[in-house]
Amino acid sequence: MKNSDSAALDHIETHLDDAIERLFSLMRVQSVSTDPAYAEQCRRAAALLAEELAGIGFDARVAPTPGHPMVVAHYDGPGPHILFYGHYDVQPIDPIELWTRDPFDPSLESRDDGSRIITGRGASDDKGQLRTFVEACRAWKETTGSLPCKITILFEGEEESGSQSLDPFLREHAEELQADFALICDTLMWDRETPGLTIGLRGMAAGEVTVRGPSRDLHSGLYGGPARNPIQLLATILGEMKDKDGRVTLAGFYDGVHPVGDAVRADWDRLGFDGAEYLGEVGLSQPAGEAGHDVLEQAWARPTAEVNGIWGGYTGEGFKTVIPAEAHAKISFRLVGDQDPDKVWAAFEAHVRDRLPADCTAEFSLRGPGSRAITVPSDSAALLATREALDAEWGKSALLGCGGSIPVVNSIRSILDMDTVLVGFALPDDNIHSPNEKYELKSFHKGMRSWVRILGKLGEMADARDAVAAA
Amino acid sequence: MKNSDSAALDHIETHLDDAIERLFSLMRVQSVSTDPAYAEQCRRAAALLAEELAGIGFDARVAPTPGHPMVVAHYDGPGPHILFYGHYDVQPIDPIELWTRDPFDPSLESRDDGSRIITGRGASDDKGQLRTFVEACRAWKETTGSLPCKITILFEGEEESGSQSLDPFLREHAEELQADFALICDTLMWDRETPGLTIGLRGMAAGEVTVRGPSRDLHSGLYGGPARNPIQLLATILGEMKDKDGRVTLAGFYDGVHPVGDAVRADWDRLGFDGAEYLGEVGLSQPAGEAGHDVLEQAWARPTAEVNGIWGGYTGEGFKTVIPAEAHAKISFRLVGDQDPDKVWAAFEAHVRDRLPADCTAEFSLRGPGSRAITVPSDSAALLATREALDAEWGKSALLGCGGSIPVVNSIRSILDMDTVLVGFALPDDNIHSPNEKYELKSFHKGMRSWVRILGKLGEMADARDAVAAA
Repeated sequence: MKNSDSAALDHIETHLDDAIERLFSLMRVQSVSTDPAYAEQCRRAAALLAEELAGIGFDARVAPTPGHPMVVAHYDGPGPHILFYGHYDVQPIDPIELWTRDPFDPSLESRDDGSRIITGRGASDDKGQLRTFVEACRAWKETTGSLPCKITILFEGEEESGSQSLDPFLREHAEELQADFALICDTLMWDRETPGLTIGLRGMAAGEVTVRGPSRDLHSGLYGGPARNPIQLLATILGEMKDKDGRVTLAGFYDGVHPVGDAVRADWDRLGFDGAEYLGEVGLSQPAGEAGHDVLEQAWARPTAEVNGIWGGYTGEGFKTVIPAEAHAKISFRLVGDQDPDKVWAAFEAHVRDRLPADCTAEFSLRGPGSRAITVPSDSAALLATREALDAEWGKSALLGCGGSIPVVNSIRSILDMDTVLVGFALPDDNIHSPNEKYELKSFHKGMRSWVRILGKLGEMADARDAVAAA
Repeated sequence: MKNSDSAALDHIETHLDDAIERLFSLMRVQSVSTDPAYAEQCRRAAALLAEELAGIGFDARVAPTPGHPMVVAHYDGPGPHILFYGHYDVQPIDPIELWTRDPFDPSLESRDDGSRIITGRGASDDKGQLRTFVEACRAWKETTGSLPCKITILFEGEEESGSQSLDPFLREHAEELQADFALICDTLMWDRETPGLTIGLRGMAAGEVTVRGPSRDLHSGLYGGPARNPIQLLATILGEMKDKDGRVTLAGFYDGVHPVGDAVRADWDRLGFDGAEYLGEVGLSQPAGEAGHDVLEQAWARPTAEVNGIWGGYTGEGFKTVIPAEAHAKISFRLVGDQDPDKVWAAFEAHVRDRLPADCTAEFSLRGPGSRAITVPSDSAALLATREALDAEWGKSALLGCGGSIPVVNSIRSILDMDTVLVGFALPDDNIHSPNEKYELKSFHKGMRSWVRILGKLGEMADARDAVAAA
């Protein structure tokens, strides 16, 4: 079956203002998930989306969870079965005084270069991005009367507040949510002209360590010298976590870390990435990662050990010559390949314990179960078809690594046993999670058009097996 | 001339209650120097002392300073000329809820072992201690009609709040305050039975370092790997400040550090100090100072490098995967012998700078000018006479090192060119600077008796030259 997407693409052009207004309507709903005061607004956002999906042919409902509800919708079309995930909740708006406009009063603004941006909380993350997909479904439905694929939609309402209900919900509804693969629109473009297909997401192990020495804070005039200083001890231990070449020294840390494949490396080389410029933008010039790997690999394909916070002793104005009883640090590891978050954290604990004098102790608290890295097969039929559609719309596309993690991709992998194709139209300067969030009108507009094309391409596949098989 | 101290000693016995009441009167004056709200009470404490000294034969006055006033008093007696220093101001009383009684309502309490303690702010530091000397003068005056020495008294009112006015005052009144040597009663006993003669005070160089990397806080999902983490950098730098044997690695750090002399070492050996017990009291068992030096030397006679505070990145509840723009530490060095505080701090700065990548910077702020260590000659006639008097009263005495510094001793040394003999009757558990400060009645009682004997002994010296000459 050959799907013609031209009518749907025309529909996007002629109904752009309507699409913007529908995004604005969703953005006006103050669905801040982390603050219980906004629970009713979260419920309203879910209801709004479910109602809309029902209007374009989905069997849609608001599904309760112990937290904010999910939106679940099914369309029983032809071709492969897609699970599309997005989230309708948004980050808090603090500090409100830094916004140039009410964050829940979205607007379309023109910039000096002639481009236009949609401003307001959720413009990009993830209301703007998820609506590019919904609008593409609408365009197909309103022009052809049907959608070219079988589609299940899952919109979450707790992504910005820890996704407490997500995994239980996926487990409980595993059969209902089962599809051939997943699509997510919550990631970045490479640049303003190049949409991104994210194929690697680093995993994470993170937690806190407290090193304890004396039973109480001591005065260094009395005890300075013979008494162990936990800050000095912690500094030594953390300092020894990396060697002079930027390599992490934890035992077995690099187990499961694989080199970047030649094909992906060649794709990356074509990006023309300038590591010096990338670092220069944040005032740096010396890559701090492992020697022998360029900046892009250090950020996308190599694991890290980071101290994200440290505190101990007297940190106020003036001075106290205290030897504190304890010192603390927050540590996180970004993981790649097959690194096991539990093993990495255990190696960190061993690294600390091995360096403790007999009269000192360490206490660890691992934050959550950690997450493994995700590697999306870069040669699956689904990904290649998606890329073909993106190339048709934009003239090019990029395979991206991602330095961070998107937990839902791990959940879809581990609970539903499905791969995910991540397509993103956001830009690094969208100010997601910050004041003055925006989404390029171009991202929104061409994002909708991209999904029209992607749905068409995917619908051309004979059946589900094609989509997940390697090309 | 031979001074008979028996009448004065008897007077102490028969007037103990009066002496306690005079101490109580002084303690009731809320002379908290750090809080401007108590300025009038500081003035009242100074006036009270000046009035009393005038009553026992001193030419006494309250001398203004830009801060709280000094008390200056002269008695033109025979023998060597002594400058006695004390301070009438006290520490703040916070946290007030931890006091079992109004800190400015002194009382005499009995303990289960039959001993008695004087409780309240200033009981020990320094109102109780300075009054042991004043009461000894009173006893001599009231029983013999005169004092056995020529005495100048200087009571400061800003010791607990930085002594801003002290050095300018000493410079301005250098001639008036000149004596053969100084006596101070603001230090510790060795134990409940053994008064202390403190002969070594460590000096200090202290300040803050800020290490800067990226121009702003970064997200480790984007920049983790290639971006330098200032916390990791600072930890490495501070970790490398000491080697595995507890030695400080700064270049030239040990220049001017001398071994403990054999005579003093022999005196210390007689103390029967138990390093394991000392550390055990604060939950430690492994001496953290330099290998090859026992706990007492580590605390009294060896220099240190301490991190007194460290902070950077996210230190609140939960977790942020931030790579911060900067990290901070407060550092202090306790100095001994002839170590130069400026050179030590410069070596620390060089240690940091040598380890900075080309794209990172460090900013330093040295806190104050630092202080050199003080070594009191342990064989001067003045010290030997004082010790003889202490031995007569207590049966023994101890030459002590002190891990901390007493800035006034440096000021007396550098501005007035005088040595100081430090005699102390305080105990480590006196809770100075803390709630429920106390002074042993025994310390107060035998302290007064000690000064009666010391004044008698010193007065026996033919003239000033004897007092400062080596025995």
